Amino acid sequence: MVIPSLIQHKRDGNALEPEDWKRLIREYTDGRVPDYQMSALLMAIVFRGLSSAELGALTDAMIASGDRLRFDQIDRPVADKHSTGGIGDKVSLLLAPMVASCGVAVPMMSGRGLGHTGGTLDKLESIPGFRTNLSLREAEAQVQRIGCAMLGQTPEIAPADKRLYALRDVTGTVESIPLISASIMSKKLAEGLNGLVLDVKTGSGAFMPETSQAIELARTMIGLGHDRGCPTVALLTAMDRPLGRSCGNALEVEEAIQGLRGEGPEDLMEVTYALGVEMLLLVGAAASPAEARGKLEGSVSSGGALETLARIIEAQGGDPRVLDNPEILPQADEVEVFRARRDGVVTGIEPRRIGRAIIELGGGRRMIEDAIDPAVGFVIPVKPGDAVVEGEPLASVFARDPEGINRAMTALSEAITIGESGRLTPLITHRVTADGLTSF
Amino acid sequence: MVIPSLIQHKRDGNALEPEDWKRLIREYTDGRVPDYQMSALLMAIVFRGLSSAELGALTDAMIASGDRLRFDQIDRPVADKHSTGGIGDKVSLLLAPMVASCGVAVPMMSGRGLGHTGGTLDKLESIPGFRTNLSLREAEAQVQRIGCAMLGQTPEIAPADKRLYALRDVTGTVESIPLISASIMSKKLAEGLNGLVLDVKTGSGAFMPETSQAIELARTMIGLGHDRGCPTVALLTAMDRPLGRSCGNALEVEEAIQGLRGEGPEDLMEVTYALGVEMLLLVGAAASPAEARGKLEGSVSSGGALETLARIIEAQGGDPRVLDNPEILPQADEVEVFRARRDGVVTGIEPRRIGRAIIELGGGRRMIEDAIDPAVGFVIPVKPGDAVVEGEPLASVFARDPEGINRAMTALSEAITIGESGRLTPLITHRVTADGLTSF
Repeated sequence: MVIPSLIQHKRDGNALEPEDWKRLIREYTDGRVPDYQMSALLMAIVFRGLSSAELGALTDAMIASGDRLRFDQIDRPVADKHSTGGIGDKVSLLLAPMVASCGVAVPMMSGRGLGHTGGTLDKLESIPGFRTNLSLREAEAQVQRIGCAMLGQTPEIAPADKRLYALRDVTGTVESIPLISASIMSKKLAEGLNGLVLDVKTGSGAFMPETSQAIELARTMIGLGHDRGCPTVALLTAMDRPLGRSCGNALEVEEAIQGLRGEGPEDLMEVTYALGVEMLLLVGAAASPAEARGKLEGSVSSGGALETLARIIEAQGGDPRVLDNPEILPQADEVEVFRARRDGVVTGIEPRRIGRAIIELGGGRRMIEDAIDPAVGFVIPVKPGDAVVEGEPLASVFARDPEGINRAMTALSEAITIGESGRLTPLITHRVTADGLTSF
Repeated sequence: MVIPSLIQHKRDGNALEPEDWKRLIREYTDGRVPDYQMSALLMAIVFRGLSSAELGALTDAMIASGDRLRFDQIDRPVADKHSTGGIGDKVSLLLAPMVASCGVAVPMMSGRGLGHTGGTLDKLESIPGFRTNLSLREAEAQVQRIGCAMLGQTPEIAPADKRLYALRDVTGTVESIPLISASIMSKKLAEGLNGLVLDVKTGSGAFMPETSQAIELARTMIGLGHDRGCPTVALLTAMDRPLGRSCGNALEVEEAIQGLRGEGPEDLMEVTYALGVEMLLLVGAAASPAEARGKLEGSVSSGGALETLARIIEAQGGDPRVLDNPEILPQADEVEVFRARRDGVVTGIEPRRIGRAIIELGGGRRMIEDAIDPAVGFVIPVKPGDAVVEGEPLASVFARDPEGINRAMTALSEAITIGESGRLTPLITHRVTADGLTSF
């Protein structure tokens, strides 16, 4: 295979053959295709895109570069959810045990926070003792046994994606819908799923703020899943303000536990239920949305979901007493209340500013090797559209020192805007399936 | 400087600042910007192009990455010619001594053959003893002393271009008019010229076959030269058939010597004179085209040009007796005549096929480290449009063994086509200057 010719062919707007993608990825993973050729090809893809056949072949090759989860003997359907990432998005912590306690196996592989959004692994690891680095065989056994595992992407899963992702990050080739889709789906399809639900965020705090782009991303990933025997559905949900009230690792775990006790904030529960309904429907664990919703609500009211979370925490080395005693989570030394400076209506709560403030507080990463402080963050009970009066508490700040409090107060004064009028945009705006698009 | 941001900026259609190009090239040459980032940027340039300011800054940075020739004390103007490359193009071998003997200094830096076209250095080195690896200081001294030096691109000239060229070759980023222009002009402008003439080939055997592309390339290079105080003019010349009769290193040297004796083929002499006229006019060594042409013809008829070539050969370690005794050039063991298989008119002589045949005979390179056999090649006295009869000699083949003869005969039967009617396209089709375009 003459790599420069393949690059030229793609550069000139032609499609490469499935066999070419297979060999390219194999030889790249083996170190026989150098980074400088791959980065030129990636840039050509940014400009030219990929045909559906090319995207499928690339994704398959990335899956084939590593190992995968296998559930050949399992007695239940297997499903998962993927979110494109947002601030305050602790949905996975509720959804995995809820769906698992409804009889669907959930082998949930998550990432760490990087950039302005948090990561499920970091949140879980704020639970004392909780271990996310399960091997694939450990994860399979745990899913067989208790119906759910919550783990990090092991080195065996799609190693080609790991190298490509790192390369894209430093070569200006991240922003490509086919490359993003191949990256996400190569990891999710390696989980051995019968169904996948995508939570594609839109709005100022989302990776792809524009609805049109979010829909294209959803459609691309749905096509990939569908063609590979993994029915996939996407909901577009609002990320123009944080989801729920808590932002920050331990604070979000605490809010997730409240949610599983039936005391979660309405928006968080609504998104969680909506995604859960799709998961149950996709794998035939419920016959109608109403039935699915009923089962999920039942898993909360019966305590079944909380009990499943207890089993997960215990199986992964964590201290399940956290469910009854959230005070064993890391606690911030400094807590302060942020108050409204004037009467008015909340016009916006900018998620990116909140996300950056968490990083400034030490609760997120600037670089992949940074350690994080799980205790810091915000609890923001107000939403855009809420009327407030001067002096009213709008948020609580959790920091490790007074300096952190000061910076966080400044961040909040920038992030939370108060004006004459404001409104809350709809929480769930579109549903995308292989058959089409519904907007709400 | 955050390289990924610069790459993204270029990718998204924006121009980088001159200062960015300067630092990019400096840090790339120092090894601080890795190849994988540069190749992604190069691919973005292929798609987005470069503004005139960007191209100038890039070219300046490439020149500044190395040393340059300096002629501060010289008593004559300094000029050179660059050709985009063709088959049978031995113009440099005639032009340099002709122009030098007209009182213009010619520090001619040339390349080796790679791909289907030959290289001036390989041709010169078929002269026993001829040494092309002069240092810059040697070249300067020789130009001062005898008015001309013919040398290879020394490692001190535009090292950034060397690295970039090698990278482009393996990353599908060769075909970009701004990148080609920057590469050529960074080397030519480092020669310390007062004027530069470009021979931009068009037609099937040219690097850029389309006239429109050739004109754009010419205009881009002319703009670069003009803005940097080096007046530049281009002629577009035909490369839909070989130039002159001889194709192959030693054979071309022999034809060049015949040309300097006034016995050269008409097309070769016409292109050489036309380019020479432009060189003399550009640096004020003649007041009119007629005067320039007269001087150049005089340099041949007086023997002055041949005498200058003798001095160049002697100065660079070669055997000047070659001028009177061309048989001391390497001679092929096998010579065979290729004859017309039918009556008719020559409809075409495909230069690329001839070029490939020379490589097959061992007279060109597949890879940069290949040794070449200087004796092999073709002499093809016919041109498209010539009437021929069956059995008439159309070409002589020079090979090292009978196997080579056989392959070369096959190549000629593919390259030289005979039909009912054919014509010779015009030899010089356009003249491009900073002021505009003239077509002939």
